[in-house]
This record gives sequence, structure tokens and C-alpha cells, in this order.
Amino acid sequence: MATIPESNVDVLIVGSGPAGLMMATWMAKCGIHARIIDKRGTKIFNGQADGLQCRTLEILDSFGIGHRAWREANHMLEICLWNPDVNGVIRRSDRIPDTIPGISRFQQVVLHQGRIERFFLDAITEASGIRVERGVMPSKLEIDESLVEDDDSYPITVTLRHLTEEEATPRQTSTSVNGQMVQDGLFRSNLANDTQDLLELSKLHDKANSEEVVHAKYLIGADGAHSWTRNQLGLKLEGDSTDYIWGVLDIVPITDFPDIRMRCAIHSANNGSVMVIPRENKLVRLYIQLTTTEKTGDGSSRADRSKINPQVILESAQRIMAPYNITYRKLDWWTAYQIGQRVGTSFSVHERVFLAGDAVHTHSPKAGQGMNVSMQDTFNLGWKVASVVKGHAKRSILKTYQSERRGIAQELIAFDHKFSRLFSGRPAKDVMDAEGISMEEFKAAFLKGHMFASGIAVNYGASLLVAKKGSNEAQGDGRQVSVANSPDKVTSDESLCGDITVGMRIQSHKVLNQADARPWHLQELLPSNGRWRVIVFAGNVNNSEQRGKLEGLAQDFGNQNAFLRASTPASAKHDEVFELLLIHNAPRTSVTIFDFPEVFRHFDEIDGWDYNKIFVDDVSYHEGFGNIYGALGIPHSGCIVIVRPDQYVSYVGPMDDTAAVSRFFGGFMTLQQQPSRVQTGLKLKNAQ
Amino acid sequence: MATIPESNVDVLIVGSGPAGLMMATWMAKCGIHARIIDKRGTKIFNGQADGLQCRTLEILDSFGIGHRAWREANHMLEICLWNPDVNGVIRRSDRIPDTIPGISRFQQVVLHQGRIERFFLDAITEASGIRVERGVMPSKLEIDESLVEDDDSYPITVTLRHLTEEEATPRQTSTSVNGQMVQDGLFRSNLANDTQDLLELSKLHDKANSEEVVHAKYLIGADGAHSWTRNQLGLKLEGDSTDYIWGVLDIVPITDFPDIRMRCAIHSANNGSVMVIPRENKLVRLYIQLTTTEKTGDGSSRADRSKINPQVILESAQRIMAPYNITYRKLDWWTAYQIGQRVGTSFSVHERVFLAGDAVHTHSPKAGQGMNVSMQDTFNLGWKVASVVKGHAKRSILKTYQSERRGIAQELIAFDHKFSRLFSGRPAKDVMDAEGISMEEFKAAFLKGHMFASGIAVNYGASLLVAKKGSNEAQGDGRQVSVANSPDKVTSDESLCGDITVGMRIQSHKVLNQADARPWHLQELLPSNGRWRVIVFAGNVNNSEQRGKLEGLAQDFGNQNAFLRASTPASAKHDEVFELLLIHNAPRTSVTIFDFPEVFRHFDEIDGWDYNKIFVDDVSYHEGFGNIYGALGIPHSGCIVIVRPDQYVSYVGPMDDTAAVSRFFGGFMTLQQQPSRVQTGLKLKNAQ
Repeated sequence: MATIPESNVDVLIVGSGPAGLMMATWMAKCGIHARIIDKRGTKIFNGQADGLQCRTLEILDSFGIGHRAWREANHMLEICLWNPDVNGVIRRSDRIPDTIPGISRFQQVVLHQGRIERFFLDAITEASGIRVERGVMPSKLEIDESLVEDDDSYPITVTLRHLTEEEATPRQTSTSVNGQMVQDGLFRSNLANDTQDLLELSKLHDKANSEEVVHAKYLIGADGAHSWTRNQLGLKLEGDSTDYIWGVLDIVPITDFPDIRMRCAIHSANNGSVMVIPRENKLVRLYIQLTTTEKTGDGSSRADRSKINPQVILESAQRIMAPYNITYRKLDWWTAYQIGQRVGTSFSVHERVFLAGDAVHTHSPKAGQGMNVSMQDTFNLGWKVASVVKGHAKRSILKTYQSERRGIAQELIAFDHKFSRLFSGRPAKDVMDAEGISMEEFKAAFLKGHMFASGIAVNYGASLLVAKKGSNEAQGDGRQVSVANSPDKVTSDESLCGDITVGMRIQSHKVLNQADARPWHLQELLPSNGRWRVIVFAGNVNNSEQRGKLEGLAQDFGNQNAFLRASTPASAKHDEVFELLLIHNAPRTSVTIFDFPEVFRHFDEIDGWDYNKIFVDDVSYHEGFGNIYGALGIPHSGCIVIVRPDQYVSYVGPMDDTAAVSRFFGGFMTLQQQPSRVQTGLKLKNAQ
Repeated sequence: MATIPESNVDVLIVGSGPAGLMMATWMAKCGIHARIIDKRGTKIFNGQADGLQCRTLEILDSFGIGHRAWREANHMLEICLWNPDVNGVIRRSDRIPDTIPGISRFQQVVLHQGRIERFFLDAITEASGIRVERGVMPSKLEIDESLVEDDDSYPITVTLRHLTEEEATPRQTSTSVNGQMVQDGLFRSNLANDTQDLLELSKLHDKANSEEVVHAKYLIGADGAHSWTRNQLGLKLEGDSTDYIWGVLDIVPITDFPDIRMRCAIHSANNGSVMVIPRENKLVRLYIQLTTTEKTGDGSSRADRSKINPQVILESAQRIMAPYNITYRKLDWWTAYQIGQRVGTSFSVHERVFLAGDAVHTHSPKAGQGMNVSMQDTFNLGWKVASVVKGHAKRSILKTYQSERRGIAQELIAFDHKFSRLFSGRPAKDVMDAEGISMEEFKAAFLKGHMFASGIAVNYGASLLVAKKGSNEAQGDGRQVSVANSPDKVTSDESLCGDITVGMRIQSHKVLNQADARPWHLQELLPSNGRWRVIVFAGNVNNSEQRGKLEGLAQDFGNQNAFLRASTPASAKHDEVFELLLIHNAPRTSVTIFDFPEVFRHFDEIDGWDYNKIFVDDVSYHEGFGNIYGALGIPHSGCIVIVRPDQYVSYVGPMDDTAAVSRFFGGFMTLQQQPSRVQTGLKLKNAQ
């Protein structure tokens, strides 16, 4: 018998759905040695559509793939609410913008999950040597608890088994939880880019039936609702014992219903409700909740689900949508989901193994939240793991994964629970009809849920990464995530925050590059590459007081003991850990970059000056006036804003309290052995 | 000796630079059987940067590749003019927006030519089986004049020779006219996508040294300033006998000049002038005219050009830009152009062989026009050839290639001539300095030339394709391009044109899709796929008079003898030749698509109703109000606008003169054998 091969890896990711791929993309962008495995032999090709929240589009854009989703997706602009009129006939009662105007530069869209996965795969390939290893599943997990707090150790040992092609090909191509599938015609448009994937299926043979052992520093279980990783850890999902059955039908509809290309919530008087989701390629998805009360227990309800087929779902839709007609000749996909609303008891073990996505939260599909919240789990986790692996940050930051994400999962389940009841209930006949659902209540809940559903409302609590009032107790998960009682405790100055909320993602408005006058959205300056940003809103730099503060700040930031030098490894690029950005609001043409301190325009002997750190809030030639000072409520005195690598705001404080910035970073960043750097090389005099 | 293989092809394109690739892209999008050959073994990788006019970006966008150029390119926002002050020291005298605000939804950008070629190659591959055949050159051309007016014949016979790898690898990778090159380091960022290209070099071996004979319906000579095709035809370039020598340096500058990331025209008092073009990847291009008077004649000046090297060009720049310092450590590419201002005497022979790009116009590089005008040559030609080959249009439309493009080439040379003198002359010391160039005059010329340089000013003259006043004599090339004296003559109604200019490309403003409220730029609805568009601006369709006219129009358009049925082949899709679009300005929410005639929402038995032909000029939720009626000056009575497959406006007329539309198309479209189409299949009743 041959020896089983063994190897080390920094991060092992189990599962290549959206949550796993998001994690792998972070690893690729941050240059981490990582592997990602999936038991399935190919990625998915159809079905599984999902809404993309505007926050998710911002995140995809930060990885350089947002434009691909934006171009290919169907854009949903308006939600139409249809309800019974006094005669019980459905009519349009309301129109609501599908995305709240002004909350993001993107709006909610819908796109097939397989395409999102394709964009991730391309981004990973472009940035790294990481490739999804398909047809590979973990068979054994061991954690050496004596090593978990040792930064450089590999406390996790996983045995991997390479599957045969037959094992790696799921009997049903549907990957949904309990999904069922009859139709698996591949859409030509989606197939084109995936040819390589299909070809690689044949490579599975080489290693089929072999085993290997991997020693990992970190393990990510992004392996779905039936998570193998979660089961190995003995962790559970907790929540509602009711499982609802949902029917989903992806068709090219033939209909005279006038709003078929809008997102619609249609409540019929007595025949139930349907959610209409228009998709790409003339497809429309219909979501219908087929039961409301069925218990699952030990799987005894499976027989009932088996009675569901496309015809059953279509006939439901026809009853609900009458007197309008609806039928189809093209069926792309259908499924019946059976799903409860549950949250994982714990998202992590020893901050060495992390669970994400469906492995820690399940809920109904109708709010279009599933893929979004799953990706945002690992969007939260990825940069933290990367910076610990690189030795930039201490392991203590990893506790904030559970403290930040479990609360979101709980909010999601609460939202879904309330929304399900309102969506699936029978409309009230009148105010005396206590069993019915008031359509006014439905609309109010809809509007309120809307902000949540955008993904923009996420507001992380106080912790060592979020310098605001409050303590770690508020996070609710018993994780010690605060520096509350330490002398290092830093709190933002609320009087300077304006419309910036510490703990939320920073809003994006346009600013102009000082050197070439090009407009950029602020978020475009914050790509996901693992860097912290310290943004100095310097105000009017022609004002002598502001200029004085700016010069003082620059001197402090350049100090040997300040965060910038203290926590950037000597071998790293000057802006690899912290990127300093400056946004002023003096007239653009009144200054040039040479009027600003050198710390904001680093000089390189080969590449010359850096022209991409100084920006101005002024009128553009072709894209209007961003007015970021007005929009964010930046005070005349300016301020310093610290933005995490995931675009969430950590801290807002005055320009002259540079010590607070160093103290904030000192709470969790590693102190590097820093040789004094001698700045050498040609410096040109600053003419002007 | 083996038999030489012979084959037929509809269109043979010689040369795979931007003009050739634009032609091939049209062929791919229109489904034409075409081949494209190039004697070089690989595409180019660096150097050859060029500005992309805003019109060029509109065109690239119509082929689905505009966003790639937009994302990768360096955006130029501002032009800074630098001139000597009273002490002879250069100072910034003016700032001018680089693109005139409001003329296009794009602004001028700069990107390496190799990337533009990559985008074309990808678009061609995605849409067709056409591949550039490299290492292939034509060796013999014969035209059978007896066949040139026979639509179905192959009057052109070309012998092709497959080169050896050595022959196919140019000694200097520069492809510029008379270009010289010392540096050919490949930029990593550009190389990634081109790997396949490099690998395919090795395939040349297979056919090396073999010959083949190709019979073609049409031949396009896009083979550069030394065009083999032009020489075979015995055609000449005519123009100025002066050849200027230009030095071009692509460097990563190390400088304290504050406007190095702006486009700058710097006139020194006594040391000449430099044009600064900031590019992608921190590169900056410097253009310096090194001589102004040298004669070429028979090539006797080559010795002089040989004295030019990067150091000579840099030192020139240093003298001009003093007291600012400029140097570099990274040199990407450099060249010395020697070039005259010349135009081809004829652009076509028998409307069977066409010349395009540098083969028919050469001029200085500094205005950033070369690649743009070359691509626009074949952008003008491609759809015309395709529609003739497909049997949709008569050969008579092909005469408009020369009548439309030779005038543009002449304007270009006049612009370049004037601009060169102003740019390269010494600034006048004062008003008495008659030999010097007045900087006021320079600025005025610059501003005026600006509109021309945008590509937006192109205004094609009256012809059978452009229904406006004027005759073909105005086109100046002796081509009979008008139906002036025929009873079929159609002229636009100027009183309805508003701000639409017949002969210019239609301006783009945002409109909303009636069915889903999504905003689109009008030009996004006009992709380059060979279709004519008949846009009905129907006004307020809630007004009974407008509604009456719309219904009458729809009835007429549906008539058996009207253009739509008469000139669409029975085998074609209903909108393959003509696409009907409707833009109304009643409130969006006051109507649904079922309120519009069926001709604007074609019913398909499989795919249901067409939701993508009816648009509305109304306020969007997230992208403001396009106000296309206001911006284009559409009258309350509405109008019909015919837009060519290349987005140029052919005709504007009243809604009730549908006969004029049929007469216009009757002037050049082929009458198809049209069986009466019986509309069958399920029609759902139009509720609402």
C-alpha cells in the first residue's frame, strides 16, 4: 500500500458555492496559500437564480467583477403589489421602487448563480494559482487543541478523498437544499464560458479513489445546509421546527399579465400568493409557498413533496393570477424547496474552523437573501484570516467573525419569518377579518424590510475593530471582541461623524483625482485587497489652520512609532498594510499634488510620484458634482476616517488626534521588527 | 507538384489592424462568410497607443466591447496649454475640457492599440467561426470585370501564400509606418490574454510555403500605408510632399511637472513643442515634432531619422519643459515617425475591392485620429457589404462608401495640416511677430478642432442612404449615390428634425423600457448587428390624435407592400432586417405594452410577447430623467426617424407619411419574394 501523501496549506476551504468562492477570492487577492475543494465534479449551470443586493454588487465590484454581473443581470426597478379589489379580482394596488433610491450606486438585480460563480472563478484565476479542486471530499477532521493559539502551527488535519467521476456527478444537478430537478437543459449563453470546466471532469480519473492528508492553519466549512464540517464539529442549527414547502418555476411565460417584467407580490383572495421575479433571457421565476403548516420531523413529509411537479406549480399560479392567463412552452428549471428557518449555534471552533453560508443559516428563498448573506459571511471573514496568516494582525480579530455575522443571521431569520407570514397569508377581507393579512401591514413591512434586504443596513457592533460606544456584551455571543476595559480603548468622535455611521459600510460618492481630474466613486478607491484605509478629509487646504493640521498629521503619520511604520513589515510595499488617502475640498485648480505632504504622494525611484492618493471634492466636467463633503456631512475642521479592508467604517476622529489612530491599530495589529528606513534616491525639487 | 487548393469566400479582408478587425467584426455579427489574413505571425503587444474618440467608444460599445476599453483605458479629462510667459518661462495659460461636455455619453480615453485589437478578436470569436489567419499574405490579385455587377458571382481571385515563421516575424515588432523600435519588452498586463496568440505562432509551420487560391465576392484592403492591395490596383496617395519626423517616447516619467497626468500642449519660447499624453499603467507618451521641413522624395532622408534615439527625444522634452525636470527609468517603447499628409485618389474599384484605413489616408499621429478614422472607415463599409451579400440591399449602396469616407479623410488631412503648423511653430513674441504662432489663434483652433477630433461632427451628405436636401455632386467623388432625379426621391422634413441632424449619428439620451422601467441609453438599443431601425417617436399616446396616428402607422407598416414585409426575406426573423422601436412620452404608469399596436410587441408562440421595443421618456428611479423629447427637440406631433445600421440618421418625417418610409427603403432595398404570412398560434386576449 502506497504512503498517503501529506501536505500543509494555510487555508482549506470546503465547498465552492458562493460563500466558498468568496473566501477563495479573498485568499487569491491577498496572496494566501489556500486550497478549495468541492465534492461535485462540475459547477452548476442553471436554476439557482438569486437576487443580488446592491451591497453585494458593491462587494463584487470591489473584486473587479461587479460590472460583469451588472451587464448580464436583469435589472429590477419596480415592485408591483397586486391585491384583490372589492370584487375579489386582483388589481395593482401599489408600485414601489425595487431599490430605495440613493442608498447605493447599484440597484438590486437578478442573475443565475452559476454566472456569479463563473465571475469568482475568473477573478481567482487571474489573481492566483488557486483552482477549485472538484470531485474531492473531506472524510476525517482532527483538531490539535494544544496548538490552536500558536500562530505558526497547523492544528487542523483533514483527510481528503478523491472521488470517482460517478461519485462526483450528483444524481440531480440541482444543488438546492432538498432540491428536486427534472429539467437540466443547459442554457447556451451560460455554457460558453464553462466548457473548460466540463473538459476537466475527465481529469478526475487520475486520482480517483486516492486519499491525501492536509494540515491546515484554518478550515472554512462553506459546505451547505447539510454541512459535513458542521456535523464533524458536532454543531447544530437551531430554530423553527416548521418546514415550509416552496415551489419554484423558471419559465419563459406566455401571458397577458401586464407586470410580468416587474417584481410582483400577488395576493389572491382565496388561492394563495405568488412572487414574480423577472430574470435574464426572458425567463421569469415564480415562487409559490405551497404549504404553511406541514411538520417535517423525521422526513415523513417527503411523500407530500413528491406530489409537486411543474404542472402543480403552474396551476397554482394560474389560480392566483386569474383573470390573467399564464402558461409556458419553455421550462428552464423547477424545484420544490422544503426548508426551515434556522441559525447555527456557533459559527466557529477555536477560531480555527469557521462555518459560513447555508452551513449556519437556512431560510426561505423568497426574499432573495440566501446567496447574498452567505457571500457576505466570508466577505467578513476572508480579510481577517488573511491578515492573521500574513502576520499583520493578531488572532483576536477572528472572534469578530461570529460576533458580527451571527447577529446578521438572526436578523435574517426574523425578517424571513415575519415576511413569510405576511406573504403567504390570505388577504384580510376587511378590518374585522382578524385571520387575514392587512395589505397595509404587508406594504409597511415590505418597505421596512426593504432596507434590510438591500444589505446596506448592516451595522457591526463595537469591538476591537469598530471603535464606537458599546461593549462586546451587546454582540451576544460571549466572544471577547472588545478592548473596552483596556487603556487602548478608542471611541469615535460622534460630533465629527456627520452622516457616516461607524460600523456601517462607507457610503460612496464621486471625488476627483487631483492629478488628472478623473471622477471616481469613493468605493472604487477601496478595492478588496486586504488593505486598511486611513482617509483624511482635510477640508479646505488653502485655509491656514487646515493646512497646519494637515502638516502636523503628516509628520505624525511618518513617525517611527506611529501605526504606519510600526505595523508595516519592512519587506512590504509602503502601502501594503495601510493606504493613506486624502480628500480635500479646496478648488481643484487652486492646488497641485506638490502642495500636499509627501506621505500622500509616495516617491518611488523607478515609478516616480504616486498620483493616486490625493482627491478633491469638486465639480467634474462630465459627471456632475459628487459633493462628498455635503453628502457625508464632513465638518469644516475635517476628520480622519478609518475604513476596514471590507469597506466598513472603524473609526472617525479629529485630524489632530493622530495618537488615537495609532492606539486603535495598536489594539490588534502586530508590531513589526522595523529597521529605520533610510529614504534614498533621487528626489526632484517640488517646483510650482 | 500538388494541386493548389481553391475555395470561395464572400469577403476577404487583408490586414488585421483596427480597420481590418472592425470589418471582420461586422462580418461576424452579421453572419457573413469571411476570412481575414495578416502577414504578421502575431498581433502587436505594446507601443501604438492611440486616443479613442468618444464616437469610437460609442461604436465599440455597439459591438459589446466599449466597456472593456472604458475600464482599461486612461481617461483624459482636461487639456492644459502651457506657453512662455513674459520672461520666456513656460506657465499654464489655459485649461480646456478634453471632451466637449454633453456631446457623448463617453469621453476621450487612451489605450494601447493591442488591447483594442484583443477586444475585437474576442468579439469575433464569440460571434462567429472567423479567425485571423496569420502568416498569410496575398501574392496575386485578379478581377474579372465582366462579373462585377453580377450579385452572385466571385469576380475577385486572390492567390495567398502561407509564410514561414521567419517570414511572418517582422524584424521590428513595431507596425508603425516606417516605425523603428528598440524596446519590445512585453507588458505583463497585456500579455495575459495574448498567450494563445503566441502559442499559435507554431501552427504556421503546417502550411508554410504553400499557396492557395481564393475566389471572393468582395476584397477589403486594410493593409496599411504601404498597402499591397492599393499597389495592385495601381491607386495612389496624393497630398503634401513634406514628410515630418515625429519622435514618440512611452515612458514612466519621473518629473516635477505638475500636469504630467493631463493632456498638455507645451510650447516653449525657443525649443519647440511637446504634446503630453498620459496613458494607462503610469505611462506617459511624449510627442515631439523633430523637423518641419525635411523632404523625403525617394527615401533619401532615412539617414536623418537614424540619428534619432530615445535620448534625443528625451533631451528635446527636457529643453521644452524646463525649468521642470523630467527623466525616466522605464522606457516602454519609442519610435520616430516619418509621415506625410496624403489621401487616396480612390477608395474602391468597381465597388468590389475597397481600401480602408492607412491604405487611403496618412497623417501625423499627434491628434490621436489615426486609429479612429481607420476603424470608422470599415464601420461605414461593413454593414453595407454585409447587407448586399445577404441579398437585403442592392449593390448601389456600396458607392456611398467612397462618397462618405473620402470627404472625411480630406477633412482629417486639412485638420492635421493646420494643427501641425500651429502646434509645431514657435510662439509669437508679440503681435508684431508675424512668423510666430499666436497662442490665442492656437487655442481657438484647438477648440474648433476639438469637435472634429471627437468624431461626433461627421455629417454624411445626401445620398440614397441619407434623405436630405443636396445632391450627389456635393459628395465630390463622381460616384452616383443619389436618387435625386427619380420619382423615389425622399427628403426629410426639416421642420420635424429639432436637434436631430440627418446624416449625423443619432444622439443618445436615456429612455425607460415600458415593460420593466429599466433605463437604457438610446444607443444601447442600437447594437451593431446589421439592422435598420425605424424609431417612432409617438408623442403622448394618451392624446387621441397621436393615438389615431399611431394606429394608422401600425396598420400601414403591417401592410403586405410596405417595406417591412416587402423587404424582409420570408426565411428571416421578423426583425432581422428592420427593427421597429417606439418611444412615447405619456406617463409610464398610465399605459402598459398592451396599449400599443402589436407590430411593436411581436408575439412568438414559444417566447411570448416581445417586451423590448416600446420605450418611454419619463423619470427613472435611480438615473434621473433622460428627457429625450426635449434634448432632441421632438415635436408634439411626433415623428418617424430612420437610423442606419451604423447609427447615422437617414430620414426624419411625419408619423402619417408611412409611404415615404417605404419609398425610402424602396430606393435601395431588395424586393423579396414574399409569401403571405399567416399569423398562427395562440394569442392571448389583451386584458387590462
